[in-house]
Amino acid sequence: MRLALAEAEKGRGRTHPNPAVGAVVVRGGRVVSRGHHQKAGLPHAEVNALRAAGRSARGADLYVTLEPCNHQGRTPPCTEALIAAGVRRVFFGSADPNPLVDGHGGRRLRRAGVEVHAGILRAQCDASNEPWFKFITTGLPWVVLKAAITLDGKLAARTGDSKWISSEPSRRLVHHWRNELDAVLVGAGTVRADNPRLTVRGIRGGRNPLRVVLGAIPAGALLTRQPGETLAEGGPLRQVLRRLARRGITTVLVEGGATVHGAFLRARLWDELRLFVAPKIFGADAMSWAGFVGRALELRLRALERVGSDALLWIRPVRT
Amino acid sequence: MRLALAEAEKGRGRTHPNPAVGAVVVRGGRVVSRGHHQKAGLPHAEVNALRAAGRSARGADLYVTLEPCNHQGRTPPCTEALIAAGVRRVFFGSADPNPLVDGHGGRRLRRAGVEVHAGILRAQCDASNEPWFKFITTGLPWVVLKAAITLDGKLAARTGDSKWISSEPSRRLVHHWRNELDAVLVGAGTVRADNPRLTVRGIRGGRNPLRVVLGAIPAGALLTRQPGETLAEGGPLRQVLRRLARRGITTVLVEGGATVHGAFLRARLWDELRLFVAPKIFGADAMSWAGFVGRALELRLRALERVGSDALLWIRPVRT
Repeated sequence: MRLALAEAEKGRGRTHPNPAVGAVVVRGGRVVSRGHHQKAGLPHAEVNALRAAGRSARGADLYVTLEPCNHQGRTPPCTEALIAAGVRRVFFGSADPNPLVDGHGGRRLRRAGVEVHAGILRAQCDASNEPWFKFITTGLPWVVLKAAITLDGKLAARTGDSKWISSEPSRRLVHHWRNELDAVLVGAGTVRADNPRLTVRGIRGGRNPLRVVLGAIPAGALLTRQPGETLAEGGPLRQVLRRLARRGITTVLVEGGATVHGAFLRARLWDELRLFVAPKIFGADAMSWAGFVGRALELRLRALERVGSDALLWIRPVRT
Repeated sequence: MRLALAEAEKGRGRTHPNPAVGAVVVRGGRVVSRGHHQKAGLPHAEVNALRAAGRSARGADLYVTLEPCNHQGRTPPCTEALIAAGVRRVFFGSADPNPLVDGHGGRRLRRAGVEVHAGILRAQCDASNEPWFKFITTGLPWVVLKAAITLDGKLAARTGDSKWISSEPSRRLVHHWRNELDAVLVGAGTVRADNPRLTVRGIRGGRNPLRVVLGAIPAGALLTRQPGETLAEGGPLRQVLRRLARRGITTVLVEGGATVHGAFLRARLWDELRLFVAPKIFGADAMSWAGFVGRALELRLRALERVGSDALLWIRPVRT
């Protein structure tokens, strides 16, 4: 299953609106083949692994991170492919959280005489698709807030001359996140102030996320002239997110600024905060990061690490 | 020498205005005795180790974290004690940084026929007394700024109902710091707002640091009624620090608030910042931690760790 999880990672950021899934065919204790879901519309992980295994799949075991689907979508149901290939046992990690198909995959296989073992490395498999699980069960994308602030919680120096708060390794990491998440979102104020491109740079094979601007896009904004799509959005945040989900956007990276972050925090419409804290102090006159949040928020520090010269804090909301 | 360093730690926080020093007597590859400096006016580490060794010191080796002193202070010079005890070899870590005695200890021993090896684990020995080295060479105490802030760099919620920002393990750690440092310092505003006791609590054998208030101490302040000494100070910060150093204060823990921290940052009169970042957000209306600092400061993240639910960032200034 660990191999299947690693296999799933190969599709990460390319599979929306589908989850990242990996599968491994094992026979007589030896790995026969591997497969992952590469892109919506292309075959699922199981089918890729079965094809690579060919006739060796007959009587073999298949490990897959997510319960095999049992419905006809853009591709035929994986359960039928598994049965047709003569797989003897199926081990899966996460149950399919889609209320329409939940549990159907395992049941279909069992009825066809396939031995099914559910919940293998379940916590890891669930974690590998946490955003997608939210998307499929609520119809809202997974929202990641990202900010780079000083030790005193500021976004920019009074003079505005301090374009980069975080260190170069931190900025490189943000490009990896843009490459993995389906969309990036900023406020129109940030477009006016910083004129960002919001593209993925410095990553071989990187693909630009959908760019979303809250409010009217200023004329001449650089981001409208980059490869990939740019969208102007407005109205209540929840509606914006729902519209993005309908387009198949499963994950959104909110890059700022203070007003936008404040709005997401206030509305509790976020799932994760990745906060770079740079060893700088700008002083009380500089702009605070979080904008107006209404009342004090109690959150949870999930992890912290050093990135370049910065601290990176991984924060989750406390669900109450 | 590692044993000597561990031995030195036993005196930490009790030796001012002297450094924390440890010594170990070794003979035939075996540890004969250990000693540390316990308190100013009491014998130095070397003498304690020699006494514990008794006649076994003759022909033995002595490891000590700091170069043995060669001058008559409140206690006689350690060099004479080492010579009288018949020690064969002396290994020391840090050279004595005191410009009045620098190098004299080693020279005196060599002239008496003792084999002297300087600079053993020098980096670790130097680090173990970094504050004291500053104190002895500049006549100023080592200044540690400590603050507990939210993710958006705030000290208190607008409502003022949020007395504790950091988690309980973080607050316990602060008591350990108070127990180790010679003085704690706050602004009169903090005394009025929070009425802190600034004592050491929850530590067996803890001793209260000197309490220093910048400005007039408000009538009825709790801290004046605690065991130990409280001092009201005023005037330019550098003068305040110099006066504290003259009283034998080698280390000061500056506990706030925003105005005081801003003043220390602005005047560059600090050596270390220990910043607890709690997973909370108070929003733009709350009070910023750092006060007015004049211009952006570039600092250095030396280490970071998790304490309870908080991140603790160890920050140093960048000397330019």
